[in-house]
Amino acid sequence: MAQKPSIPKGTRDFNPEEVAKRNYIFNTIRQNFERFGFQPIETPSFENSETLMGKYGDEGDRLIFKILNSGDFLNKADQQAYDAKDSHKITGSISEKALRYDLTVPFARYVVQHQNEIEFPFKRYQIQPVWRADRPQKGRFREFFQCDADVVGSQSLWQEVEFVQLYDAVFTALKLEGVTIKINNRKILSGIAEVIGAQDKLIDFTVALDKLDKIGEEKVKEEMLEKGISQSGIDKLQPLFTLSGTFESQIAQLKTILSTSEEGKKGIQELEFIDKAISELKLHTANLQLDVTLARGLNYYTGAIFEVSAPEGVSMGSIGGGGRYDDLTGIFGLKDVSGVGISFGLDRIYLVLEALSLFPETITNTVKALFINFGEAEAMASMKAIKELRNHGINAELFPDHKKTIKQFNYANKRNIPNVVLVGESELASETFTLKNMASGAQQSVDLNTLVSLLGN
Amino acid sequence: MAQKPSIPKGTRDFNPEEVAKRNYIFNTIRQNFERFGFQPIETPSFENSETLMGKYGDEGDRLIFKILNSGDFLNKADQQAYDAKDSHKITGSISEKALRYDLTVPFARYVVQHQNEIEFPFKRYQIQPVWRADRPQKGRFREFFQCDADVVGSQSLWQEVEFVQLYDAVFTALKLEGVTIKINNRKILSGIAEVIGAQDKLIDFTVALDKLDKIGEEKVKEEMLEKGISQSGIDKLQPLFTLSGTFESQIAQLKTILSTSEEGKKGIQELEFIDKAISELKLHTANLQLDVTLARGLNYYTGAIFEVSAPEGVSMGSIGGGGRYDDLTGIFGLKDVSGVGISFGLDRIYLVLEALSLFPETITNTVKALFINFGEAEAMASMKAIKELRNHGINAELFPDHKKTIKQFNYANKRNIPNVVLVGESELASETFTLKNMASGAQQSVDLNTLVSLLGN
Repeated sequence: MAQKPSIPKGTRDFNPEEVAKRNYIFNTIRQNFERFGFQPIETPSFENSETLMGKYGDEGDRLIFKILNSGDFLNKADQQAYDAKDSHKITGSISEKALRYDLTVPFARYVVQHQNEIEFPFKRYQIQPVWRADRPQKGRFREFFQCDADVVGSQSLWQEVEFVQLYDAVFTALKLEGVTIKINNRKILSGIAEVIGAQDKLIDFTVALDKLDKIGEEKVKEEMLEKGISQSGIDKLQPLFTLSGTFESQIAQLKTILSTSEEGKKGIQELEFIDKAISELKLHTANLQLDVTLARGLNYYTGAIFEVSAPEGVSMGSIGGGGRYDDLTGIFGLKDVSGVGISFGLDRIYLVLEALSLFPETITNTVKALFINFGEAEAMASMKAIKELRNHGINAELFPDHKKTIKQFNYANKRNIPNVVLVGESELASETFTLKNMASGAQQSVDLNTLVSLLGN
Repeated sequence: MAQKPSIPKGTRDFNPEEVAKRNYIFNTIRQNFERFGFQPIETPSFENSETLMGKYGDEGDRLIFKILNSGDFLNKADQQAYDAKDSHKITGSISEKALRYDLTVPFARYVVQHQNEIEFPFKRYQIQPVWRADRPQKGRFREFFQCDADVVGSQSLWQEVEFVQLYDAVFTALKLEGVTIKINNRKILSGIAEVIGAQDKLIDFTVALDKLDKIGEEKVKEEMLEKGISQSGIDKLQPLFTLSGTFESQIAQLKTILSTSEEGKKGIQELEFIDKAISELKLHTANLQLDVTLARGLNYYTGAIFEVSAPEGVSMGSIGGGGRYDDLTGIFGLKDVSGVGISFGLDRIYLVLEALSLFPETITNTVKALFINFGEAEAMASMKAIKELRNHGINAELFPDHKKTIKQFNYANKRNIPNVVLVGESELASETFTLKNMASGAQQSVDLNTLVSLLGN
């Protein structure tokens, strides 16, 4: 086989620079998750099919990667489906396992399966890849990482306050200042639907409202009419379209609009609690903004809804999102476990940091010094010094072959190694090291102790 | 669906303690990989089937997890195989992708695909999961991590010296002292086969020799006879069975045995270079041992062969292995790229560290303080202090609900949180904090600055 090898569409190889940059983001998120008291769990890459199927709607089911059973799988295939050559129907009988589609359903499964070992409230985080057989396109992959933090087993609104702070802490640590954390509440949306007499059209209503930014007020109203929301109901919505100003002033307007809805008032109360706490605690660099048009997978959320957008000027869609859900584990038979969680969109955060040149330069420059190889005796002296450097926590290496010096220097350059150390005949005799800075070209002759202390900085 | 959820056999959930312990091992390995100048890459979880199939023998092919094509896959199925209901034959036509089986073949594919972007010698490491449809049993899983470091593009024996030092550095950092790094050389084995006139039976010969430890000299000889190796050849082997003593004395005996084999002498030279370098450089805590019975996937290796075993008294099989291979990338059309690499057996290392109680206690105790929740005003004061602690890099959290104090203390206990902080009515009034050590029960009243400095230690 001599054809040029390739990888499946929608997947990626990551080179050392990319891995280093991705790990910088992962580590920053992980460190802040732990700073906020979240603990890591990991679940298998594939789950039993029945764990995943039926949890993401028909479209989701279609996008789940199924793993073919081993051995003589056709022997156990559903005979009817086989005879009918029905790919959809036969799948369950020739595939028992599937790659995870997100981290949320496996987490729910984990909580139910391990409920007796878990101390509630359970604050867990999980950073693992997921797979979706989506049509690949710019920024959308078939394998990508999700970074989730959730708390289950507590209805306390302090969690929502914590998550706002956590977003702020992570993006501040990444030096991505000025992100906007948008917040809404499902109860506000339900309240509005109630007030305009469209309780039964809550989803149509919010799907339309969610488009306000993109298509404008008139088109949103048209869509609502089309979906059967009454003109008088839409008229009552008018204040929503012009809702503006600070968090507090928007809340004041919502109080008028929702004065007749108990659920709406509950939503306002929750938002007020979070806003008041954040005002007292203050954020480092992020902004908290009320956005009543925010819906995000409404069926799922029952309280707070979050979405984070990159700083103004960077068009990137959302770089994080989440919310409260009241019955996640119900699908696996454990009722009444309230949860709230957020996630970080790694790939988009990566693109934003890249666009704004926010990756620290030192990330990719991991080796401090390359020792030039001048032959066996010199290499041995170099290896002894390298061992000493490593004992002091300094990353260093010997060029393995005795090649032309220019080639070895080129290697240091291409690898972005900031220093080379030369141990030639004269250095060997005098037990010294010639240290050369690759950027400035400056070089100096030093003894081992000095070498360790210079490279250790 | 209310049936108790489960995970596929051979897979595992990892709870927070297990993740923390695994990450401790991963981080130690990763840090040392980088200290030795290795750079990380990552490849997709699944590859095109043709990249993997045929690289691991028939048994390997069978153990590769195949991913079912999306959509109407039966429509494109091989009609003949379909009619014959031949599971084996149909697979290629309904499955284009497969989960990676190891990190070596994807690495070879990566090197060939990206050869123009890579600076050779390329020192890469890779820590990612692999999947095998093996029969699950104690210590053998269907999903497990591999941790590999390889250098391609250099034939220098300094790499072998580096890998011996790298093993020593990692196990020393893990406080697993006294591991034995066994080394052999394919050329020694070839030389022996040559000397006894069994060149054409090299594999049979080494497979038998590899069992010396387990079945003893007599049985090994019987097996060799069965495989058609002559009695006179076996007689010539006699010195091998009694080979003992230091590295140097074994080398001296091998020189006699292999005096007529050019290849054998080349193998001796290589071993001597490595032994001499390691003697000069010295190892921290590991031992280097020559083991001429070591074969490990002989077909693959062309020079050095490594295997690491746990310290005496821990029966665990090998916890690492590797060697030099001269044509890894040839399968993808890139010839003459010599490589050498090693890997670490994460799951076994985990079991050894557990058995010897070598995991640092602090690993699982990530949150320094839990603030007890006495109600809204007290919680707000707590949250302000928590924010200050976090700003100082201290992991802390508030119990989210205003529950009975005893329940909150229980939570701290179960979570292994070493301190609780109480902010009740009187602390709120005096702007102080009561800090209680969970182990000793000692408590003190402190101001915020003192709290930060006490918990920051």
